Amino acid sequence: MNFSCPAPSRSTDRVTLAHGGGGRLTRELVEQIILPAMGQTAERAEGDGADISGAGDRLAFSADGHVISPLFFPGGDIGSLAVFGTTNDLAMCGAQPLHLAMCWILEEGLPMEIVQRIAVSIGESARLCGVEVVTGDTKVVDKGKGDGLYLASSGVGKIELAQTPSPKRIWPGDQVILSGDVGRHSIAVLSVRQGLEFEMTIRSDCAPLANPVLSLIRAGVNIHCLRDLTRGGLATALLEIASASKKGIVFGEKAIPVHPEVEAVCELLGLNPLYAACEGRFICILPATETSRALDILRGNETTRSACVIGEVTEENAGEVRMETVTGIERTLDWLSGEQLPRIC
Amino acid sequence: MNFSCPAPSRSTDRVTLAHGGGGRLTRELVEQIILPAMGQTAERAEGDGADISGAGDRLAFSADGHVISPLFFPGGDIGSLAVFGTTNDLAMCGAQPLHLAMCWILEEGLPMEIVQRIAVSIGESARLCGVEVVTGDTKVVDKGKGDGLYLASSGVGKIELAQTPSPKRIWPGDQVILSGDVGRHSIAVLSVRQGLEFEMTIRSDCAPLANPVLSLIRAGVNIHCLRDLTRGGLATALLEIASASKKGIVFGEKAIPVHPEVEAVCELLGLNPLYAACEGRFICILPATETSRALDILRGNETTRSACVIGEVTEENAGEVRMETVTGIERTLDWLSGEQLPRIC
Repeated sequence: MNFSCPAPSRSTDRVTLAHGGGGRLTRELVEQIILPAMGQTAERAEGDGADISGAGDRLAFSADGHVISPLFFPGGDIGSLAVFGTTNDLAMCGAQPLHLAMCWILEEGLPMEIVQRIAVSIGESARLCGVEVVTGDTKVVDKGKGDGLYLASSGVGKIELAQTPSPKRIWPGDQVILSGDVGRHSIAVLSVRQGLEFEMTIRSDCAPLANPVLSLIRAGVNIHCLRDLTRGGLATALLEIASASKKGIVFGEKAIPVHPEVEAVCELLGLNPLYAACEGRFICILPATETSRALDILRGNETTRSACVIGEVTEENAGEVRMETVTGIERTLDWLSGEQLPRIC
Repeated sequence: MNFSCPAPSRSTDRVTLAHGGGGRLTRELVEQIILPAMGQTAERAEGDGADISGAGDRLAFSADGHVISPLFFPGGDIGSLAVFGTTNDLAMCGAQPLHLAMCWILEEGLPMEIVQRIAVSIGESARLCGVEVVTGDTKVVDKGKGDGLYLASSGVGKIELAQTPSPKRIWPGDQVILSGDVGRHSIAVLSVRQGLEFEMTIRSDCAPLANPVLSLIRAGVNIHCLRDLTRGGLATALLEIASASKKGIVFGEKAIPVHPEVEAVCELLGLNPLYAACEGRFICILPATETSRALDILRGNETTRSACVIGEVTEENAGEVRMETVTGIERTLDWLSGEQLPRIC
């Protein structure tokens, strides 16, 4: 005889509030939709957390919220963005990504097919990065209190560098390497928002960066600072490093690779590609003596084959980032005060 | 000379989309509002992740999304809920919580004072648990695409038990200890939703559980399984354990402590306290020979002073949870199919 069993919901084609209730439907959502789509079994998902023993004693820990709109864009989706975003953050700590946690905040009414597609993407992206989603959570908010779905990912990785890369370690004379062209992610997302995705060829740069970074580390390259370019783009990353290190950074406008189509769209819409978000680019600051070896290694890797030196660290203009423009003038970069493109990641 | 600086927003009393843009306002939000309110400095928050080295090799990892409505309720708020929720999950893995990450998903227009109050609560709750928020993220969604704020927390802890507690380790004859009365959290949240908070005295049971659990572990009590009662309440926790262990669990309805006011509200609204969410209660399944020692330890701890034995594990009725009702009938508990109370955590 059954006891306390509210009327069952049969609407499994869309997310309902009951999918967030912690009962049968939550279990079905996780065990029948999310885990199989990620290529995992229910076994691993039992309990309140995951045992991640065996990673050693030197660990990095990182977390990101993802609210990108739309959920799918040329070159990726919110699922690949979450996996690459968090594994890239761990790589920037000089760590090999090992374990991920994924929290889903679903909006009531979201087609279950979307949940499934995103979960497939998470599973594929995780395998590409050699990590597994070992724990997580699933919540549902009422219709009109979300926007389809938000994903919060967090991850743990094993630090492989003797000294954690940090702005505090950069030094005058150090060179700044940029791993590839900037701004693709912003423009790819924008193209969908504006309904231009079929007229444009630009795909997001959304990509995993742990492999090229680990290649540098394992070759023994002396890395002072690593930073991936996300919200706020290259300019913000450089400003954060200059500010935290109390050193100056100078770079050449001409040295920054920007795809002509990205440049054209930015010009049209009054955006600045230097501040445009990337999701698969990073900068690496290191002694000038290490540069040529680092470039060789990075150029041997598909994601970073266009790596180049863009500038260097200076004693003067402490805390500032200066750009030599194409016209030969030197300008001080400022922080982004407003919002170029909301919900880009 | 400034370069690429969109018009600055001066509205710092409310969250704007630009607070999520990764630029100056994001930095101000994190460094001037969130971190100081949590009692931390900006230093720790630099970079893409946190170095959490030194925790040893045996680690647990857990993550939760929090979408509770309203944000404040008698006995807690979304901030304390997030900290206790994640540290409790780690405790249920037999781990001492060490490090937390906190992702904020803010809705445009949210009064900044709310962000500050929640951040203060996170800081206080973290100190109470002996953990620190070492990394995190802050995103903003447009007005009407959220509900004030959602918080996704994740955490890492050091496993102190030789064998991780698991439903697979429970055995016929094992006893089930419940740490306190059930259903307070649901009813406290409901009281605010219904505008009844001034007529009722019930406060949420929202509380940190790591101390009582670690007391058991450090006393060498042989614990087979631990589970905190959250969404779906006591009944769902027992069902999950019975299902995963392929053992039966039987308990007495009379043995379950329920506050008379909780009972009255549940009766009035057709809710079942057995399925009502708690946020500071857990069950512990262990050999009968360990029970009396475990009860002594738990009763010496404020949060678990009403701990009691409610039932036991059986060989028969594998995978089922059976309740001896007050009238002497035995009933099989079913999974919650619908949703008792959405957005309770």
